[in-house]
Parts: sequence; C-alpha cells; structure tokens
Amino acid sequence: MKKLKVGFQGVSGSFSEEALMLYFNEDVETIAVTEFEDIFYAIRDEKIDYGILPVENSSTGGISQVYDLLNQHDAYIVGEVCLRVEQHLLALTEASLEDIEVVYSHPQGFEQSKNFLKEYPSWQLITYYNTAKSAELVMKSQDRSKAAIASKRAAQLYGLNILQESINTNTTNTTRFIILGKKLEIKDDSNKISVVITTKHTAGSLYKALKHFAKNNINMLKIESRPIPDKPWEYFFYVDFEGNLEDDEVLHTINEIKKDCQYFKILGNYKKAD
Amino acid sequence: MKKLKVGFQGVSGSFSEEALMLYFNEDVETIAVTEFEDIFYAIRDEKIDYGILPVENSSTGGISQVYDLLNQHDAYIVGEVCLRVEQHLLALTEASLEDIEVVYSHPQGFEQSKNFLKEYPSWQLITYYNTAKSAELVMKSQDRSKAAIASKRAAQLYGLNILQESINTNTTNTTRFIILGKKLEIKDDSNKISVVITTKHTAGSLYKALKHFAKNNINMLKIESRPIPDKPWEYFFYVDFEGNLEDDEVLHTINEIKKDCQYFKILGNYKKAD
Repeated sequence: MKKLKVGFQGVSGSFSEEALMLYFNEDVETIAVTEFEDIFYAIRDEKIDYGILPVENSSTGGISQVYDLLNQHDAYIVGEVCLRVEQHLLALTEASLEDIEVVYSHPQGFEQSKNFLKEYPSWQLITYYNTAKSAELVMKSQDRSKAAIASKRAAQLYGLNILQESINTNTTNTTRFIILGKKLEIKDDSNKISVVITTKHTAGSLYKALKHFAKNNINMLKIESRPIPDKPWEYFFYVDFEGNLEDDEVLHTINEIKKDCQYFKILGNYKKAD
Repeated sequence: MKKLKVGFQGVSGSFSEEALMLYFNEDVETIAVTEFEDIFYAIRDEKIDYGILPVENSSTGGISQVYDLLNQHDAYIVGEVCLRVEQHLLALTEASLEDIEVVYSHPQGFEQSKNFLKEYPSWQLITYYNTAKSAELVMKSQDRSKAAIASKRAAQLYGLNILQESINTNTTNTTRFIILGKKLEIKDDSNKISVVITTKHTAGSLYKALKHFAKNNINMLKIESRPIPDKPWEYFFYVDFEGNLEDDEVLHTINEIKKDCQYFKILGNYKKAD
C-alpha cells in the first residue's frame, strides 16, 4: 500500500511536524512547505493527501491567517489534534544569558513568552518564518549573541543549548491543529462541524442565525469573527458546533441557519480532539 | 483652562497620533508612551486624562493585545474614532526598489501590505515597535538597502522618500481607535456599549446570554472571542451593542444578561464613530 503524503508548514523540528506525528501515528511521508497557503495549493494539486495547520492557541487565540485561508480555499477539515506547546530559549552551547542581544522566533513564540521577554527589554526581537527555522539560523550563525525561541525538539535537531527552559507565560499552553483534505469526509465518529457564515447587516441578524442551534439543542463550541475585505466593520463568523452531517436533525438545523445567512460554507466534519 | 493631556502609543508620525488629532480637534497636550499597556498605567496614575489605542483594523481584524488589556485593567472606553490607513514603502532619497534588502515595520504594517510584499520574496522583514519608529530607524541608518512600511506623515517627519505609494492590500483599510479614560462617562449622545462576558461552559450558554439582546430589540454590533488564560478552549466574549446606560430598557437587558453570565464587565459607553 502506498504511504499517505502529509504536508506541514515549516521545517523539521517545528510544532506542526510534531502535531503531524501525533495525529498520524502510522507510517506517513511528510512534506514540508514554506507558507500556510502552500498547504492549500498542495492539496488542490494533489501533491499531498492531507495537510496540517495550526488554527488556535489556548493562550494567544485564533490564528487569523489560517481562518482567512480556510474561507478563501476549497480544502475541508477532516480532523484535529491538540499539542502542548513548550517554548524554550535556545542558544549556542558557549552562550550565556548575558551574551544574548538578538532573539529570533515566530510572532507566536514571542507572544507566548512575553512575560519572560519583559525581563530583558534590551533584546532585539526579530520575527522569523517559524520557531524551528529560528533555531536553525542561530546554529548556522555560530554567533553567541543570538538566541531563538523554539521547541526542545528544535534544540536537539540543531544542536543548540536550552539556555532557559519553559519560558511560555502560560503553563497550559496548547495549540490546536486541523487536518485538511481535498474532500469532505463524514465518518461515524465525526462529531464536530465547522462552518463560516455572514449574516444580513441588520439588527439581530447574528442572533437570528445562531438561535437555530439553541432551538435544536445543538451545542455551539466556538465563534470567531474575521473582517470581510472591502466591507469595513462587517464580519465572517466561524462557528464550530457538535454534530454529524449524516444526522437528520443536524441537516435540518443547517438548512434553517442557511435561510438566515447571506453566505454559508461548510468547512468540515471531523472528530473532536480530546 | 488647563490643557487636556492625551496619551498615545508610539512616536510622532504614528497612526495613533494622527487618530488622536482627528478625535481631539482642540488644543491638547500629547504624550507618547512605548507600550499599549503604558496607556493604562498612565490613566491609573493620572499622568494623562485620556489615552488612545487602536482596537481593530478593517482588513486584518481585532488587535488581540488591546482586547486582553481592556479586560485586565480598569480604564473605560469613552469614545472611538476611525482613521483611513494608507501604508507606503519609505526609503532614503537615493534608494531605488532594487537596493532594498531589509524592511522594517509593525506586524500590522506587514500584514496590511502582504500582497505587495509577496512580489519581493527576498526582502527580510523585521518587526519593529511601530511604523513611525521604523521610518526613524531607516533615516538614522542612512543605509539605502533599508526600507520601512509607514505613513505619509512619517515620510515627511523623517525626511524619507515614498518609494512605492499605497501598498496596503485593501483600499478601504481603516483602523478603529478607542479613547480611554479613568471613569465611565455616560453622555446624552453615548449610543454604543462594550462589555466582556464569560458564559457557563454548558450547551447553549452563549446563545442564552445573547438572546436577551434580540428579545429586547437591542442591536448587537460585534462579537470577538479571546482565550481565557489557563482554561484551554474557554473564551472571553467581547460584545459591542447599541444603547445608552441611562436607558431603563438597556439596564434591564444588562441585568438579564448578567444572570446568564459567569463574568460580566462593562468596558464603556460612548458615541459610535461615523
């Protein structure tokens, strides 16, 4: 049997790769891409069977760019997985905290470690592609004034020293990743549905759309709003709720909601992560 | 009469300063602070009468850090103002597009110009305090390989050339700023209320809290969700709705909503921007 090809954004040692391994605990071929959007292109062009992307962090919130891409492209969410994220300050073996002048990381790495970073206001923070690539850059530079905020795995991969362990502000720091595929997959254990909607721009219209969940006793798990380009102060609402698309009651509710929406798109039906 | 002291985050030439001038079209003393959070400290310590902070951009969405700070601190929203934001690529007079290797800006500057930046994948993008400080850095460096993404005002202030005009992806790019004060101010023309709530973590609880708006015919303008630290996948909901806190019907609705919330905090009552 041919191995499944699964894409992730970043390089070896990234949290995305770790999440991929956690979800596909079988023998898959992993393919690294540069940008979040590349995952959608690779799925469309059938270069990969599935892709994985981070969508939300428990301390810093939704990853807006991924929400926007989900709406712009045609891939479906077919699964999700949560990964505990621990950020560490990595540097060359010979470097000490006093040597550090410049720190590289992904904006999320900085945001998740902001309380620690407040203690070192003189450090210059430089945004880099992702946490693992930041570790790679520090290793390649061989410069003891440079550090990266990245995972333990990145430290091992790039031979860096953990100068300060677990610098993430929030100790329950978890990132939720979604698995994307070309087709909508409805399995028996699919119990979570994601949709994106826009409502009429009139009083009570969001409430009107949402009331069908309550009326039909369907549990809404999350609502996230994102701006509609070129329509200032109008929003796309991303709603997650419990259900399976083969359940008649769920289909009935969706049909009712559609009537109260200007735009309605199903993003996927999948098994909720534990 | 003593001049009002108004604080903004950033340096001269920032969009925040421009919004401040637009809102307080009288003679005020402006005070620049380094971090968003400094505005809250300055209000608490009565070093300023009011402060201004960006809270939402029409193309990139809510500014999460400001939402989180509003909940953590005790200042009130007393007004809002919207500013059209045009981003430009600024460099030294002698620099051409071919010279550019490094671009400095605030993450929002990069995000708002992402389509333009895609055409120059080799440019290194360095996150800096804000757009105006990025312009200042380019001027001080006297290095023709450096550019900044910032406003026309910043170009004038720091004597830089506009190498490429209006590089923001979205042509209706507008930022909404809020005016913060120490006390809740309810004026006759206050017609917008902002609150932050948490609901019980049970099925339909968000719907339950929101239903009071519809039941009492109160128009909900916006809902934004932010994570609750240390409670993965639970959220603070920031809700904006129409009304004046001296209106009996509004007070009645708020009291009903409170009963269906675990946490309820009024962030302010103010006049909606045009």
